[in-house]
Amino acid sequence: MDFKVTPWEVEGEVDYNKLIEQFGTQPLTQELLAEFEKKAGELHLFLKRRIFFSHRDFDWILRIHHEEPFALYTGRGPTGPVHLGHLMPWIFCKYLQDKFNSNFYFQVTDDEKFLFREELSVEDTKEIAYDNILDIIACGFDSKKTFIFIDTEYAKTLYNIAITVAKRVTFSTTRAVFGFENSTNIGMIFFPAIQAVPCFLPSILEKRKAPVLIPAAIDQDNYWRVTRDVAERLGYYKPAAIHNIFLPSLTGPSGKMSASKEETAIFCKDTREQVFTKVMNAFTGGRATIAEQRKFGGNPDICTIYQYYYFLFMPDDDEVEKRHLDCKSGNIMCGPCKAELAERIWTFLEKHQERREKAKDVLEEFMLRD
Amino acid sequence: MDFKVTPWEVEGEVDYNKLIEQFGTQPLTQELLAEFEKKAGELHLFLKRRIFFSHRDFDWILRIHHEEPFALYTGRGPTGPVHLGHLMPWIFCKYLQDKFNSNFYFQVTDDEKFLFREELSVEDTKEIAYDNILDIIACGFDSKKTFIFIDTEYAKTLYNIAITVAKRVTFSTTRAVFGFENSTNIGMIFFPAIQAVPCFLPSILEKRKAPVLIPAAIDQDNYWRVTRDVAERLGYYKPAAIHNIFLPSLTGPSGKMSASKEETAIFCKDTREQVFTKVMNAFTGGRATIAEQRKFGGNPDICTIYQYYYFLFMPDDDEVEKRHLDCKSGNIMCGPCKAELAERIWTFLEKHQERREKAKDVLEEFMLRD
Repeated sequence: MDFKVTPWEVEGEVDYNKLIEQFGTQPLTQELLAEFEKKAGELHLFLKRRIFFSHRDFDWILRIHHEEPFALYTGRGPTGPVHLGHLMPWIFCKYLQDKFNSNFYFQVTDDEKFLFREELSVEDTKEIAYDNILDIIACGFDSKKTFIFIDTEYAKTLYNIAITVAKRVTFSTTRAVFGFENSTNIGMIFFPAIQAVPCFLPSILEKRKAPVLIPAAIDQDNYWRVTRDVAERLGYYKPAAIHNIFLPSLTGPSGKMSASKEETAIFCKDTREQVFTKVMNAFTGGRATIAEQRKFGGNPDICTIYQYYYFLFMPDDDEVEKRHLDCKSGNIMCGPCKAELAERIWTFLEKHQERREKAKDVLEEFMLRD
Repeated sequence: MDFKVTPWEVEGEVDYNKLIEQFGTQPLTQELLAEFEKKAGELHLFLKRRIFFSHRDFDWILRIHHEEPFALYTGRGPTGPVHLGHLMPWIFCKYLQDKFNSNFYFQVTDDEKFLFREELSVEDTKEIAYDNILDIIACGFDSKKTFIFIDTEYAKTLYNIAITVAKRVTFSTTRAVFGFENSTNIGMIFFPAIQAVPCFLPSILEKRKAPVLIPAAIDQDNYWRVTRDVAERLGYYKPAAIHNIFLPSLTGPSGKMSASKEETAIFCKDTREQVFTKVMNAFTGGRATIAEQRKFGGNPDICTIYQYYYFLFMPDDDEVEKRHLDCKSGNIMCGPCKAELAERIWTFLEKHQERREKAKDVLEEFMLRD
């Protein structure tokens, strides 16, 4: 690909390269990707296109995995329905599970969302948790190697491990890392210990010192910075991480999609009609008139439609490059480009929704319980 | 009794009347004791002698108990073996259970002690917990109405209720009430929410809005001050409390007995020989020589031996009054007075230890588990 697409530049408010510096993570280098390709036999779209762009110790994970297979861990805070942005790390986890035969641990933090959101009750977050789990399972994970748990329902195991972490983390640390204040409730203050647990759970359940890789959106990195600080003192490996950027909001360059703003995102339970309406109303890089667009071309680099193709819905490199050029040269208008995307999204969602329905019957096979 | 014994004055460092003011609790008045006597048909030694001296809402508990029976709750932080001082609230709970047919909830806070004590492991505190539970059961509780739980083993239930409390308690509050600092670990900061749970557990398990009475040493009052602040917002009654003073240290007026200082206390597992050695070496109000004591008399008001009689081992009022006078007038020497106490303590302990052995076989009948 000789054209330059830096999807993160679309995100007016987030500079991902600065995040790497600020968080002290490592960029995914060409060398590391070559190493991955050697081990996996191919390079996933998300790596090739730098949707996953940053990491901690991912090189170490690849180096040792033949001797010490890594477990995967990611999570979900159940505040509302799952959207396409949430799916990205899960799709990547499913890919890694297939390639590396990895055990996959999935934490659903209903306690966190109850504690952090004034308006949510324990019943609310639990109901959302079960709804969200259907979307996780719909990603196609292997039930024999996938262990999903809801914090409040796995609380005995979690609390027992969490106190060993909590004993090593002070209020000062959580204040510095998470910005907690004197007015923060004591459940929130304790929560980083609960979120650390799945980094150590594979070691405990698999009865070995297990390397753990966390694919997650970059904004979650804080939690595991604290975990990494205490891991070795507790006799575990530091968890490794690989970070993805956010799928942009459909409404334009204003940060990530939001479960609370219906129009910003495509939700996994959306109908065909909802998908079409949202995509047709999305923010694009198009001109004011068709005539202008024919004459001057559009700007795919700020276009959410193009980003959706790039992130998820146009895996073929030649095709996506051609679309970029066709847009810039005025060869394609926004209307048909949007309609095509909506169709592709719906094709994807229709299958997802079928698997989601089937997930209801097999949910229990995936659940870890006390 | 016309002689004045104020056992708390023996405690050089603790002024219990000031504690009532400082903690904002109520003294146990003559009127309230009369009310109690009317309901219970008698007045327990601990009430008559003001071993229990302070309360919160104990008057309300007595007033409503015919309509809404109260549950009892107390606890134990397992740091070492149980001593006679620990037994006092338990003995009183057993008495109240018998008189009022109360359900009794007992929390063993192994998590707390692990979090607060650098040197203790999770395994240590759990082992001590199980050892201590034998002493609880040995107090003679009714297994059908007694529910003992170890925090780490009942963590699922506890955590689920604790987060509803934690959401309503800020770091500021715990800093003000418990003196937590920025260097306090986040497990300790969360712990007040765990310790609040048994105040609400009877309501949840008994499926009614249950009044709860907490007999406990006065130093534990802090925890339930916070609990009382949040109770009504969560739909529960504020827990009531009744507070006892500390059994003095055998080594003299230096605060309460300590599980970590062998010579300060009589432990429930002590041998006859240990009991005699400790009592014979205890701090007394005796004179330097027998001749002086005959002439000037001893001082029972600063004497730990006399305190032990007064607190636990001389229930007969006439007898204890006579002992006070005999001491002051030089009619009794420390040697025989100590030997008699040692004998009485051993008689008590020997029976306790028998029940303690039997407790091993029935322990499970008392345990609440997730």
